[in-house]
Amino acid sequence: MIGGRRPLQGRKPGDRRVRIERPHAPYFRYTGPGHLTAKEAASAPTTATGRIWANVRGIFVGKPLASDEELGERLSKTKALAIFSSDAISSSAYATEEILRVLILGGVAALAFGLEISIAISILLVAVAISYRQICIAYPTGGGSYTVSRKNIGRTVSLVAASALLIDYVMTVAVSTSSAVEQIVSAFPVLFDERVLIGVAAISIIAIANLRGLREAGNIFAAPTYLFIGSALIMIVVGVFRIVVLGEGATYGPTIASQLSATAEPLSVLLILRAFAAGAVALTGTEAIATGVPAFKPPEAKNAATTLAVMAGLLATLFIGITFLAVNFAILPIDFPEKKTVIAQVAQTVYGDGILFYLFQAFTALLLFLAANTSFNAFPRLLAILAGDGHMPRQFALRGDRLAFSYGIIVLASLAAGLIVIFHGSTHLLIPLYAVGEFIAFTISQTGMIRHWLREKSPGYRRRLAINAFGATLTGIVAVIVTAVKFWDGAWIVLVLIPILVGIMSFIGRQYDAQAEELRVREDGVLPGPHREQRVIIPVNGINRAVVQAVNFGRAIAGDVRAVYVTDDLEAADALRERWERQLPDVPLVIVESPFRAVISPVVAYLDILDQAWPPDKEAPVTIVVLPEYIAKHWWDRVLYNQTAKRLKAALVGREHTVIADVPYRRGH
Amino acid sequence: MIGGRRPLQGRKPGDRRVRIERPHAPYFRYTGPGHLTAKEAASAPTTATGRIWANVRGIFVGKPLASDEELGERLSKTKALAIFSSDAISSSAYATEEILRVLILGGVAALAFGLEISIAISILLVAVAISYRQICIAYPTGGGSYTVSRKNIGRTVSLVAASALLIDYVMTVAVSTSSAVEQIVSAFPVLFDERVLIGVAAISIIAIANLRGLREAGNIFAAPTYLFIGSALIMIVVGVFRIVVLGEGATYGPTIASQLSATAEPLSVLLILRAFAAGAVALTGTEAIATGVPAFKPPEAKNAATTLAVMAGLLATLFIGITFLAVNFAILPIDFPEKKTVIAQVAQTVYGDGILFYLFQAFTALLLFLAANTSFNAFPRLLAILAGDGHMPRQFALRGDRLAFSYGIIVLASLAAGLIVIFHGSTHLLIPLYAVGEFIAFTISQTGMIRHWLREKSPGYRRRLAINAFGATLTGIVAVIVTAVKFWDGAWIVLVLIPILVGIMSFIGRQYDAQAEELRVREDGVLPGPHREQRVIIPVNGINRAVVQAVNFGRAIAGDVRAVYVTDDLEAADALRERWERQLPDVPLVIVESPFRAVISPVVAYLDILDQAWPPDKEAPVTIVVLPEYIAKHWWDRVLYNQTAKRLKAALVGREHTVIADVPYRRGH
Repeated sequence: MIGGRRPLQGRKPGDRRVRIERPHAPYFRYTGPGHLTAKEAASAPTTATGRIWANVRGIFVGKPLASDEELGERLSKTKALAIFSSDAISSSAYATEEILRVLILGGVAALAFGLEISIAISILLVAVAISYRQICIAYPTGGGSYTVSRKNIGRTVSLVAASALLIDYVMTVAVSTSSAVEQIVSAFPVLFDERVLIGVAAISIIAIANLRGLREAGNIFAAPTYLFIGSALIMIVVGVFRIVVLGEGATYGPTIASQLSATAEPLSVLLILRAFAAGAVALTGTEAIATGVPAFKPPEAKNAATTLAVMAGLLATLFIGITFLAVNFAILPIDFPEKKTVIAQVAQTVYGDGILFYLFQAFTALLLFLAANTSFNAFPRLLAILAGDGHMPRQFALRGDRLAFSYGIIVLASLAAGLIVIFHGSTHLLIPLYAVGEFIAFTISQTGMIRHWLREKSPGYRRRLAINAFGATLTGIVAVIVTAVKFWDGAWIVLVLIPILVGIMSFIGRQYDAQAEELRVREDGVLPGPHREQRVIIPVNGINRAVVQAVNFGRAIAGDVRAVYVTDDLEAADALRERWERQLPDVPLVIVESPFRAVISPVVAYLDILDQAWPPDKEAPVTIVVLPEYIAKHWWDRVLYNQTAKRLKAALVGREHTVIADVPYRRGH
Repeated sequence: MIGGRRPLQGRKPGDRRVRIERPHAPYFRYTGPGHLTAKEAASAPTTATGRIWANVRGIFVGKPLASDEELGERLSKTKALAIFSSDAISSSAYATEEILRVLILGGVAALAFGLEISIAISILLVAVAISYRQICIAYPTGGGSYTVSRKNIGRTVSLVAASALLIDYVMTVAVSTSSAVEQIVSAFPVLFDERVLIGVAAISIIAIANLRGLREAGNIFAAPTYLFIGSALIMIVVGVFRIVVLGEGATYGPTIASQLSATAEPLSVLLILRAFAAGAVALTGTEAIATGVPAFKPPEAKNAATTLAVMAGLLATLFIGITFLAVNFAILPIDFPEKKTVIAQVAQTVYGDGILFYLFQAFTALLLFLAANTSFNAFPRLLAILAGDGHMPRQFALRGDRLAFSYGIIVLASLAAGLIVIFHGSTHLLIPLYAVGEFIAFTISQTGMIRHWLREKSPGYRRRLAINAFGATLTGIVAVIVTAVKFWDGAWIVLVLIPILVGIMSFIGRQYDAQAEELRVREDGVLPGPHREQRVIIPVNGINRAVVQAVNFGRAIAGDVRAVYVTDDLEAADALRERWERQLPDVPLVIVESPFRAVISPVVAYLDILDQAWPPDKEAPVTIVVLPEYIAKHWWDRVLYNQTAKRLKAALVGREHTVIADVPYRRGH
């Protein structure tokens, strides 16, 4: 940050008149008296690489948007569908496989139930979507589970929803990435052994892109969603045609049937429930549209609701269609010798071994990476909302602030990458941790809506209330089922983490509340001006330009200025006093002999005795400790200079009635 | 450091009168007008554990000494011998073995030369000691190689000496510790496999003791030296009596003789030179007394010279005696199956397997650990001298400063422990790196003395000149021999390191010189007072106690005070302006709208436009940015508060004409 704004400094002397008359013009709009609005230049990159990157980014993903511009550039339904649905739609890439993996335990006969279960889950999806349409209409400013429950239920429940969502964002990244890698591995089996590495690398690339300011607003983000939807729909049409019209469907061969029967458990309600719970992962990501209502073109609520309906319809079609093909082509998950996903086998059966199969795999993997990317936007955004409400450290609320945003991105990427390493990049092993949080959040938001309608009692609220009550009951039941049947597979981890996160966020909230209470100032009346006296203490190491500058600063701000020289060398002390009294006669110099050769503690002790010498009936003065600071130009300067000042500062920060003033001395000035 | 001095705060209200009249009494002596001398209390520990440790330390090693007290408590010759000679004397524990390890290559016949070589080295030792006696007399303030060569030769050569010494201090720790562990292992072979661990643990313990402030002044440090000297002299007397009078000496058995002859190389001058170079390690540590002259009782120089003579005599006696016994008892170094040192075998032969042998081994190991400990005092002391001359970062010069001292101790311990790990705790493998630096330092200091006498030309200088010229020639030759014959065994590492260290220290020196030049202020005339105007900018987040405190501080130090509020929430901005104009009407509030939701860069940009708005013909005013800082009481407070202030500070440090003032707000005030 040294050196300020480059563009201005680069101006020629002839520009000076302009600068003086309207100096703020490049950075600010003058909005009113004492009111400036920062232009983009005010937060423009000040380094060369920063500017180059900004240009590159400008080409690919558009320029950064200001809060109001962002609202200005509303999304059409087509674009919104692509951007908000990638997470939900992409779950069709692994949901079928999860169902088959459970049913396989019941033998070949059980596998036939796959279709029924996918239809049941699709019905659940439609019910949830209808419930969420209510939220789009009731909360046109964006209604995530956290917002809805905070407004309608209460602080603790909303924090449960927030915790569940935070966990789910991590899981979205981990599951989508590992599934994407499995799609790649299905096309290129030679990469199987590198799947963990590829997954971690992919997360790193997505994280870095987001750290550098990738935004999902660009057109390129719409492509993968439509490419996948299009090619998957063609695959389903062609596949269904071949099965139903041409009768090309296959049945599970006798070898496999007998192999499976040997270890099969009887087809039970529990097995069906487990398959249902496994497939319920198809619903993850449904909330995104309800959260993003303000991004739609007006009428926002209506457009969002329509988009949600289309999304649910598409997802249901894809999910049922892929499951139908998988069951009728007698496809089973293959883990050995290399992983081959069910959707890849379906695609291979329909499209053959040619370029079309590889393209489909590419589209699927791209969509899954895009789904992972959505969490990199949503996770810091939720952190920012939580920080705004005082449940996360405040710095997370500064969304335009690269560093705070970066923390969120790095935390998310690290957790997701960690999960991929721990679970060896296996989507199947990760899934049990996934849907639990999502269904808890669903249930909480639907329940919040019940309270909302009961309070609002707007016209026709009874019907809306009934819809949300139905949704809440349904998602509540599914939440219990999912948690129960997946408990020992990993769902317990989520149930342990949620209370921990809620506890931390409540604690932070109490801390900030206590601080605000403590700092509160009465609302009325003019606040009195300063009444304390002040004195300046300047630790010096001799007479030099940096010291003179600090002394002059001290003289400018207070009448009582003293320099303090700590030494164990009496000769040097006497020489300095002689020179000091000659050159700076109006500033008293105190020599503190330090026979123990300490420097920091004698200064602190000296400040202590100054305070204690003050008459006890008068308020002690503010002590301003002025520290000359030599500004580093090279990395080694940081080692060679200012070390004593740094430690003195550390010793004094927090001292009563003490202000520390750093007076920088710049080399070459 | 929060909260200042405890002892005073704990005083009762009745003490107040005393406090006001002589508040400095507990910490300072009033030495003259504007001159205080810190008492021990001024650097007393302020924490409970710190005080407990200070008491424990007081019992064992005495209280810390002030610079002048330290000089007051002079050392008697007996005590000085023990303290300054442990490094030199302890080398008799491994020097004989090093000679035998070389001679063994020439077969049994060659081993007989061990005695002659040890006598030759002892003569060299006496010559060096006589040369050093001159230094004691010429430099009664302490004359290490660095000081002598800096005064008499020049900057670069003195830095070569300093580099050689720094390396040798590290080697002293590594070699002494590994030899001490080998003595322990010789007595308890079961510990053989743990020798690296024991060595590293021993270095850690010594380092921790030094970090906590162990000083070598205590009486307990004299004990090991005398216990070793006493028991080694008895061993020599008994052994010589048994060999010479009782004729109990042994000869190398025929098996060993034929084994050795099979691989023996012919007895050559080179072999003798190599044995000589190996044994020359006996001279390491000789410089210590010359460096420590001021610590002796007066007449310092004479007492130091006497002590040096006694030390040389004792070391020569022990070295020749032990070598005589080893050769006449037909002792060879044993490495397999467990290490058994030559001195341990000598002791076992003389003292048998009983308690006396174990005691002797304990004394030897203790002395060696004590020798390692001396480096922990000398190394930071040399760093402090180098830092005082501007060749090391300045903070190392603060010897009373625990932190700076600690860096030196930690660096020394880490390097030595690293060497022990790399060389598997083998004294023999470490030795080639050891003596090279020492002999380079010897040569440089003797050469410096030649220049000294040539310049001084004090009465009788010719004789003194001749002695030092002889010493310089001798040590120079040995330095070349040692380097040449040990070159590929490790001496090359030292020859590579020395120029690197010299380069770094020269670089640091040039940096500090350039800084001093840049900061130089003319020596005469009164320096003018402040002439710049100043204004105060206070970034605020609302109206609360911390902000009011900062605003009041700003109003107290300058007339031009502005508050800046950065937000993307216009409603909040309007509400704040309304309240601000009501409650703080005389302080203008500038609202900076930040649609990009950045906080840091708009503040910096605002400061930039303020500067640019200043008339170009007037010097820009000093901008004082006042940052309210909420003081942490718990570790989590550091995460929850002040993050924005911290980052704003980082962005502003080094900005032209800008002073940063931290105004702390303490909870509960």
